[in-house]
Amino acid sequence: MDNTFFKKFTPKEPKFFPLLKGIVEVMKNASDLMIEFIDKGTAENSEDFYNKIKTEERKGDALSNKIFDELNTTFITPFDREDIHHLATRMDDVTDFINSAAKRIFLYKPKQMPPGAKELAIIIKEGALTLEKAINELDILKKSRKRVSEYCAELHVLENKADDIFNQFLINLFENQHDSVELIKQKEIMYELEKATDTTESVGKIIKTIIVKYA
Amino acid sequence: MDNTFFKKFTPKEPKFFPLLKGIVEVMKNASDLMIEFIDKGTAENSEDFYNKIKTEERKGDALSNKIFDELNTTFITPFDREDIHHLATRMDDVTDFINSAAKRIFLYKPKQMPPGAKELAIIIKEGALTLEKAINELDILKKSRKRVSEYCAELHVLENKADDIFNQFLINLFENQHDSVELIKQKEIMYELEKATDTTESVGKIIKTIIVKYA
Amino acid sequence: MDNTFFKKFTPKEPKFFPLLKGIVEVMKNASDLMIEFIDKGTAENSEDFYNKIKTEERKGDALSNKIFDELNTTFITPFDREDIHHLATRMDDVTDFINSAAKRIFLYKPKQMPPGAKELAIIIKEGALTLEKAINELDILKKSRKRVSEYCAELHVLENKADDIFNQFLINLFENQHDSVELIKQKEIMYELEKATDTTESVGKIIKTIIVKYA
Repeated sequence: MDNTFFKKFTPKEPKFFPLLKGIVEVMKNASDLMIEFIDKGTAENSEDFYNKIKTEERKGDALSNKIFDELNTTFITPFDREDIHHLATRMDDVTDFINSAAKRIFLYKPKQMPPGAKELAIIIKEGALTLEKAINELDILKKSRKRVSEYCAELHVLENKADDIFNQFLINLFENQHDSVELIKQKEIMYELEKATDTTESVGKIIKTIIVKYA
Repeated sequence: MDNTFFKKFTPKEPKFFPLLKGIVEVMKNASDLMIEFIDKGTAENSEDFYNKIKTEERKGDALSNKIFDELNTTFITPFDREDIHHLATRMDDVTDFINSAAKRIFLYKPKQMPPGAKELAIIIKEGALTLEKAINELDILKKSRKRVSEYCAELHVLENKADDIFNQFLINLFENQHDSVELIKQKEIMYELEKATDTTESVGKIIKTIIVKYA
Repeated sequence: MDNTFFKKFTPKEPKFFPLLKGIVEVMKNASDLMIEFIDKGTAENSEDFYNKIKTEERKGDALSNKIFDELNTTFITPFDREDIHHLATRMDDVTDFINSAAKRIFLYKPKQMPPGAKELAIIIKEGALTLEKAINELDILKKSRKRVSEYCAELHVLENKADDIFNQFLINLFENQHDSVELIKQKEIMYELEKATDTTESVGKIIKTIIVKYA
């Protein structure tokens, strides 16, 4: 039986999910690269690392532009247009902050990586993995509601951990780093990494909103 | 007479107003604590002050989350959903900036409070009191239109005062503060306080928009 | 023949275009003033230059407020309300960043203008001219679609150029500027200028979205 007619009117439009999963994939790659950059980065190889991360960032941009274009041309979407747009944009922001941190390491060439940077990068990676689980169940939200809520709670816990690390970093920095140019460099790099963890949490908040509205 | 039926269809939904008033209350408490912090803060008690302000900030978050959840589940709202959301979020941002300033005082432990900090904190408090008057009359906007507009104009005047204080602070700081780490500390603390006054003004702008649309 | 009746029901409302053109005009004036400020600015005349640029910024604010008020009271608009609002706001942000840069030059009184500042200011001007061409054809979008897309691509190229200039500036600054207070001053001034070029590009993105939706 030709069911084209019925397909046409399927009320849910599944093509956004692969794109959202693609954005999570990019986020995972970028955070892996960032962990490696912090471990093995030198003045010599920092441009290479930055370029690899920038490549991921551009992939993320392309995916989020694609979602955006589809939203503007697709009549039926699984959730409200603005919710998908908001979700994709915030997810892509995580990679943008990783990219900003990488760019600053490359441009500023700090004498050493900021203490705590690796812990933050690991938290970003954990956040990406948690987000991946949430996104994977977003299309069966009525069934997965409880689990997805738990993933969002996990993102909140990760953000709190990141906060503690960043605060302790700042206390030590302002107490002990008397080279003020080095202080500026380290502070800015850590700030971008902390923003990335902030942003994974705020993605969690957007997902929670979607749960309230649709599950 | 049982008027449940009629109640159910009352076109206005008053439950957002108490929540908005709660957010103003939090803002008042946080700005009072900030004034006290600037007056009496020391390296020893700064964590205490910060924790008290953080407690207010979390109350504000809880209230704004509550508004957000209700918006997503309430069919009838007194104004457009996005207007209430926008209003609550921006109001809550004021407390967030007070909290950010307090956090920086605690983390950075500046040698002295920035000159002008107390004036800014007092302006924030005045802004919160002005906002309180505006919010209190928001549910009778057709009658209170003129007064509410005046409160918004007052918020603009306060913001201009704060601007002058902040600019003068920066001129002096860059001319006279040769300890660059101290310069960074003071600058960032003042920046957050100034942002708080900016934000009360932008709440005023949101209210003005609401007046244009509904009064 | 009296065609008032028909006029009243013309489906397109042209009054937003002159306002949008006004915002571009302001942007052009502000960037011209910025180029002159960078060329001829001294500690003595910097307040004058800043005041002239601030005057433009206020004109921009007034125009964008006017658009906002009209959006809230006009029933028929050429595009979706939010698209016009978003477009006008982002366009006005360009002038805001020029103003922020000017303010910092005036307040901080750097020993010298940051190297690269003039190049960035020229790119901002070129962006304003490109944007002018795009806005001028926005009301005949069905015919001008291709050209307008090209203007948006041009804004992207300009942004990339600005990025390279800013990155090179930062590399040199962190390598060679050992006066950390001067480093902070120059870095912040350039940051605002770079943000202005970023923002012209993001106006381009908004226009691209409008093309997808309406052309």
